[in-house]
Amino acid sequence: MHFSERDHEIVGVDNYFRRNATAELGCESLLPTPNLTERAKIWEAITGKQIGVHIGDITDYKFLLNIFKEFSPDAVIHYAEQPSAPYSMINRDKAAFTLQNNLLGTLNIIYAVKETNPDCHIIKLGTMGEYGTPNIDIEEGWLEIEHKGRKDKFLFPRQAGSLYHTTKVQDTDLLWFYVRTWGLRATDLMQGPVYGVFTEETEKDDRLMPIFNYDEVFGTLLNRFIVQAVSGYPLTVYGTGNQTRGFLNIMDTMQCVYLSTTQPADHGQLRIFNQLTEPFSVNELASRVKEVGDRLGYKVKIDSIKNPRVEKEDHYYNVKYTGLLDLGLKPHYLTDKVLEDLFAITDKHKDRINKDSFFKGISWK
Amino acid sequence: MHFSERDHEIVGVDNYFRRNATAELGCESLLPTPNLTERAKIWEAITGKQIGVHIGDITDYKFLLNIFKEFSPDAVIHYAEQPSAPYSMINRDKAAFTLQNNLLGTLNIIYAVKETNPDCHIIKLGTMGEYGTPNIDIEEGWLEIEHKGRKDKFLFPRQAGSLYHTTKVQDTDLLWFYVRTWGLRATDLMQGPVYGVFTEETEKDDRLMPIFNYDEVFGTLLNRFIVQAVSGYPLTVYGTGNQTRGFLNIMDTMQCVYLSTTQPADHGQLRIFNQLTEPFSVNELASRVKEVGDRLGYKVKIDSIKNPRVEKEDHYYNVKYTGLLDLGLKPHYLTDKVLEDLFAITDKHKDRINKDSFFKGISWK
Repeated sequence: MHFSERDHEIVGVDNYFRRNATAELGCESLLPTPNLTERAKIWEAITGKQIGVHIGDITDYKFLLNIFKEFSPDAVIHYAEQPSAPYSMINRDKAAFTLQNNLLGTLNIIYAVKETNPDCHIIKLGTMGEYGTPNIDIEEGWLEIEHKGRKDKFLFPRQAGSLYHTTKVQDTDLLWFYVRTWGLRATDLMQGPVYGVFTEETEKDDRLMPIFNYDEVFGTLLNRFIVQAVSGYPLTVYGTGNQTRGFLNIMDTMQCVYLSTTQPADHGQLRIFNQLTEPFSVNELASRVKEVGDRLGYKVKIDSIKNPRVEKEDHYYNVKYTGLLDLGLKPHYLTDKVLEDLFAITDKHKDRINKDSFFKGISWK
Repeated sequence: MHFSERDHEIVGVDNYFRRNATAELGCESLLPTPNLTERAKIWEAITGKQIGVHIGDITDYKFLLNIFKEFSPDAVIHYAEQPSAPYSMINRDKAAFTLQNNLLGTLNIIYAVKETNPDCHIIKLGTMGEYGTPNIDIEEGWLEIEHKGRKDKFLFPRQAGSLYHTTKVQDTDLLWFYVRTWGLRATDLMQGPVYGVFTEETEKDDRLMPIFNYDEVFGTLLNRFIVQAVSGYPLTVYGTGNQTRGFLNIMDTMQCVYLSTTQPADHGQLRIFNQLTEPFSVNELASRVKEVGDRLGYKVKIDSIKNPRVEKEDHYYNVKYTGLLDLGLKPHYLTDKVLEDLFAITDKHKDRINKDSFFKGISWK
């Protein structure tokens, strides 16, 4: 919608994985979300602009290749990976699905680009979680290493915190291999946890709002805290709550992917951006939600629970994130107004909240 | 056979991938090689020792898990990856097969160990090719990095030269994730190109000799040069021939895996060894083969051909490989006698040489 609004010709491809997985796990979106075909129709009715829709699985190479042949895109934005860390840790089958879906999907996109149009710019969604929490500053994708008096430049060393995040380390290596071997052009957006639900385009019609997950498996932290606060459930802080990550508003993810697409990488370049606007600790976000929630009359409680994950709770965290600002990103920071709007939309749909999905205790062990 | 000879209880698992793939590509082993079941019978007839055989695919988790449940191994030696760089570069289907086979097989072994016996030591075959040819010294798996006054230790940065080698980078990341998360014990043997065909065990019966590939796809460099020399085909040197790698005799691979298995890694440790005994450039090996071959009367020619690979031909190469020596490795270096013995066994089977398989020109591009 963000690209279509700006008069780009767009097709969307979806296999409805998240819809099916959230149905299976009993943690569906807080907001009613029409399917992709219906949403494209709503969009066209409002704006007069068409968005093509293909329902299918990009791990099926023929399906994907046909779309590339028909549509011949100048850029492909790859959001088609299984995106949940807890999901990837449930059992072997879900780990195997994550591994195969994420790597085969990425491989297929790379091959479809090479076979149809090697100029096509690949924009892949990475994750800040690829870096983990190293004891050194996190640079923007690359690191020059000096060792015994000699120097070379490498992908920043990554050590991820879940099987899902590990597949993202792996897909970066996969993409970088083919970019340097075939001279492809690629941008990897190392995204932090996203919050929010409103974008310029969703303002046109509530039915255009994104899937809003608030559960343990697919919900991101701040969204989950808001829904917990509205439903009178204590905010679930894992362990000490000192874990720090770089967050961003969903409006800024739209800006980042748009800026990256309209100012593409060069041939043979894997351009990496750290996509975040503000670092927060879990405790800081819990406090912010409690403060705003209490003011709105929700009586928010915070509960520290035993951490089901294997992760450092107290760690160094200093991240560079200037690349997207240099491209023109104008950040939307986490104001009280942003939190109040999230409380309001959540309250409107509070009958749909399934409290059982807040914490199932999916253990990393 | 090496373990069985030393009174360990052994089962072998094979899906005959290499047999099938070499049949498909027309590049079968120089030596007639009975199948695994037949070889186990020959072994038993000679030694009185039994080796269990399971024919099947470890990417089938139920098949693999049943073997772990029945046999309950103390150690698993994982040689089940698609091992050819050129094979992985032929087309999308072979790349996808390599990616899925190598990562799903590794994942399944990790899960089978966790579900049946987390004490079981995983010995995985890595490759020196994971490192590529960096402009800094190659350490033994790990590197302490100092950056802006702070320090941390990471997997040595790896940048591999083919899709196959990239899957080996990925499987190391996969293994390391689960080792540190679940406290498993693992050893990764970063093996250089292996040459030779004779081991202590093959001396007992020619039918126990390993598959001997000499073709562009599955043949390793020195073995290919010997077979080319015997058949009067010029040795195929890619580009300048200054590419340098660390080689080892097949007898030493047996020692390395045995030493690693009998002196296992600790819980939570991914122990990495660089498994090579001598670095050589391609030109050095070509010269050695020519020198010995000419003396034996073969009139060996060397042909520099356009490099079908994307790789640095002139590069820095300084590798540390002391870990296995510390465990007790006694290297068998590349003497003229080793080369003469390889000439002799090759000459004995020269009617089976398929010259068409020496160079098909599988291009990295």
